[in-house]
Amino acid sequence: MLQNILIDKAETLKPELFKHIVKPSRAVHVTRDAEAFQGWRMLDAGSPEDAYVKIWDRSDEIILDFCQYCVGYLSFEIESEVNVDCPLRLKIILGEVPAEIGEDFSGYNGSLGRAWLQEEILVLDDPPEKVRLPRRYAFRYVKISAEYNSRYYIKIKNIQCETVTSADMTAVAALPESFSVELRQIDRISLDTLKNCMQTVFEDGPKRDRRLWLGDFRLQALVNYQSFKNFDLCKRCLYLFAGLADENGLVPSCLFERPQPHSGKSQIYDYTALFAPSLLEYAQASGDWATAAELWPVAERQLRIVLKEVDGDGLFQDNKKWWLFIDWSPQLDKQTAEQGVVIFSLKKALELSKALGREPETWIKDAIVKMSDAALKHLFDQEKRVFVSGRDRQVSWASQAWMTLAGVLPSAGAAEAISTAANTPDAVKPAGPYLYHYIVEAMLAAGMEKDAYALLEQYWGAMVRLGADTFWEVFDPQDQYLSPYKSHIINSYCHAWSCTPAYFLRRQKSQPFCAER
Amino acid sequence: MLQNILIDKAETLKPELFKHIVKPSRAVHVTRDAEAFQGWRMLDAGSPEDAYVKIWDRSDEIILDFCQYCVGYLSFEIESEVNVDCPLRLKIILGEVPAEIGEDFSGYNGSLGRAWLQEEILVLDDPPEKVRLPRRYAFRYVKISAEYNSRYYIKIKNIQCETVTSADMTAVAALPESFSVELRQIDRISLDTLKNCMQTVFEDGPKRDRRLWLGDFRLQALVNYQSFKNFDLCKRCLYLFAGLADENGLVPSCLFERPQPHSGKSQIYDYTALFAPSLLEYAQASGDWATAAELWPVAERQLRIVLKEVDGDGLFQDNKKWWLFIDWSPQLDKQTAEQGVVIFSLKKALELSKALGREPETWIKDAIVKMSDAALKHLFDQEKRVFVSGRDRQVSWASQAWMTLAGVLPSAGAAEAISTAANTPDAVKPAGPYLYHYIVEAMLAAGMEKDAYALLEQYWGAMVRLGADTFWEVFDPQDQYLSPYKSHIINSYCHAWSCTPAYFLRRQKSQPFCAER
Repeated sequence: MLQNILIDKAETLKPELFKHIVKPSRAVHVTRDAEAFQGWRMLDAGSPEDAYVKIWDRSDEIILDFCQYCVGYLSFEIESEVNVDCPLRLKIILGEVPAEIGEDFSGYNGSLGRAWLQEEILVLDDPPEKVRLPRRYAFRYVKISAEYNSRYYIKIKNIQCETVTSADMTAVAALPESFSVELRQIDRISLDTLKNCMQTVFEDGPKRDRRLWLGDFRLQALVNYQSFKNFDLCKRCLYLFAGLADENGLVPSCLFERPQPHSGKSQIYDYTALFAPSLLEYAQASGDWATAAELWPVAERQLRIVLKEVDGDGLFQDNKKWWLFIDWSPQLDKQTAEQGVVIFSLKKALELSKALGREPETWIKDAIVKMSDAALKHLFDQEKRVFVSGRDRQVSWASQAWMTLAGVLPSAGAAEAISTAANTPDAVKPAGPYLYHYIVEAMLAAGMEKDAYALLEQYWGAMVRLGADTFWEVFDPQDQYLSPYKSHIINSYCHAWSCTPAYFLRRQKSQPFCAER
Repeated sequence: MLQNILIDKAETLKPELFKHIVKPSRAVHVTRDAEAFQGWRMLDAGSPEDAYVKIWDRSDEIILDFCQYCVGYLSFEIESEVNVDCPLRLKIILGEVPAEIGEDFSGYNGSLGRAWLQEEILVLDDPPEKVRLPRRYAFRYVKISAEYNSRYYIKIKNIQCETVTSADMTAVAALPESFSVELRQIDRISLDTLKNCMQTVFEDGPKRDRRLWLGDFRLQALVNYQSFKNFDLCKRCLYLFAGLADENGLVPSCLFERPQPHSGKSQIYDYTALFAPSLLEYAQASGDWATAAELWPVAERQLRIVLKEVDGDGLFQDNKKWWLFIDWSPQLDKQTAEQGVVIFSLKKALELSKALGREPETWIKDAIVKMSDAALKHLFDQEKRVFVSGRDRQVSWASQAWMTLAGVLPSAGAAEAISTAANTPDAVKPAGPYLYHYIVEAMLAAGMEKDAYALLEQYWGAMVRLGADTFWEVFDPQDQYLSPYKSHIINSYCHAWSCTPAYFLRRQKSQPFCAER
């Protein structure tokens, strides 16, 4: 009953979406090119108007480049020139990146369902018609093919996309010119990424998954507070998580809005811990402490649940009940990073509790002390001055990042641990943008501003140099085809957990110190 | 302006369609079987309810048999059992015959566009959903496949078809039991064929083409007058043809209703001639002589146009301006058959003119005499007692049929010519049901009742024995794969020009004399 009230409150906060009409800027051809990102290059093929007046024959296609990332509803008109002999069968493929237009989907063998590959087959009986695709798509490129037609001459024209977002771009000024061109570009792409993921919830990616994840939400909210300041959308998401808690009070790590809000059933240990920090950050940014007070029991409940996995010595133990995320890296041992996430979250919860004027929460304080002591005693290699994880005492960037954010060591010690890991050749590196965020955040927390911004410029700048319009779910500078789903074309190329450079840059008044590339 | 008035009149006659809900009777598997029609057999796989409760995995399919031919709108419900990981991509294939379910459409290479192959790809974001396919389909079998799903467990249930037709089956009694079981079965299948082609016009076939053809219309109307008696639908079609005549007054041989009524541009010489007989037959059946009077100028105009192709000797000459149809047979010489069609149509026009109380149309009489004389003089082999056609004096069934219907010879002579052709080994035989109709009709006109009904039972009965639910566009007892479009799966298996056994049978009071098979 209580939960229904929370969901009802979330639904009243569902935003009206901003809508804009975007038209393609040019026609293109796609071609193999080993030098281009993922082996495919788009070649200019004139204006869209030139493509429209083309007369289509039996099998034919046009590719249009919107020259910006769009999330929304594609529409076009069909003019039939002469009499038709059969219905018109059109295949429409929408791509975030050139590879999706170049590759043949029929060879797809990734681990996720192929329905995420953006392909629509239309059979139209009676053109001329106005067509509007019913599904929402996320794309820069559109390929429209006539499949095995029969003496059918048509013109396709007035292709456009009605984009949707709950982000108000007019509310955000560009970074001042005291920032370098490159950093301003990274900032703009970050905001485009976030904007396109901001719909009626913060989606992880508008092409694939399209759902609200707690850990992703925290990063999106942090950027939002520095830019669009859509506080109601954050509030809506917090109520959705709270309202969909299970019978033990555990909030879902991911959730779906439709047909009605429901839990995605996935439970990620580190995401669960991060509910409390997310609530604090919302209240700090918005000033809405009433919501923080209402949802405090939910935050508290998450931490009590999380602490059940901490043993008598104050150490997190993986009993295989939970999905531990931290990063995609398959070789990463996650014990130490999870330990750090929990300590970090407990500290944020304590801060929230104080801000709410609550009685001292001694159980939180006690847990922080016990877990911090245990971390120093069992997870810190005093000799090497670095945090280690698991039975094999693995050294990883992830462990240093989360232990730094947990504040287990003073900042000088944290910086030393981070540098030690960075200089350890077999230390496990981050495999994707989500963890890169926390590395940068930890470096800043450890006073390593120069290294932090150098890493930011190096990692996100590399995507820009490869042609990114929005930042990607998965990016390894050494492997453009890396995919956790065994197919690069199913990766999301607009993924909000990758949008945090704007958060880092917008907290600065001017160009931070950057190492040269 | 006048034409708009005719179209407007046609539009006021657009029928409301009868709607019925039809549900599948069983689940089936499709399997290769060299003994079965076109090499595919359906094997029983239990009740639809058993198929529904099956849980779908990554890739899976069900095939349902409605056990009757349906034209209409397919709908079903999707229940999703557990949480979804990606949208649901369903491929739905609808088949008139087992081959369409068994064959792989991706190998299709027929001469017509593949959009006629009944396949729908759906991508559904948020099941549970109720799905109703927007296109109208024509089928007995439905295959629903989940394509490369991702941990997606669903149930599909409550599959049904809302059928549509403008034929009122309740208005038609079964043939009396004085007819054999086989003939009653042929009659019922004929009526099912016509019913499914009767929509807002008489369509040639509800799966493919789905348009109004003048020659097909005449045969459909003849059956309709003996069964459903939907006179308004005939009247609507006559006004559509008349209203879409070109600047020379030539009516189209085929036309489309949507987006607005327009000519199909095809001009078939024999179809054009048959407008006048069609108008007469409509008035005779309905008693609506006012319409016949209003459209008389259109009938007259068609014959005047047709007569332009008749030379000074009274002979039709093919000057390659027209499409001559008569039959699909590629080797058929059509001169003599066309000569017969024109004489037949002139005679019907004269009859119509008299019935309308018009002054004697001497130009028609003169043309009949001149063309009949020319036929006897130039197209009749006095020695062999058979009509011949073209430079090579080809003997064909088509020539005898149309010359018989033209009444150029007395009936004894016509019967002799038909028998002679039938006994001439290299005489060109009919290639499809449309011409078979005229052979039977000619045999009856020549007093060959026994042969006529034997042929009817033999030809249409063979389709029944091969499992026909409705009669086919194309049928050669020697070749189950014959297709004018180079692919048997694109053939129409419910084609109204094949429905005329009901016309022949329903003019009889009881079992006509039939030769044994």
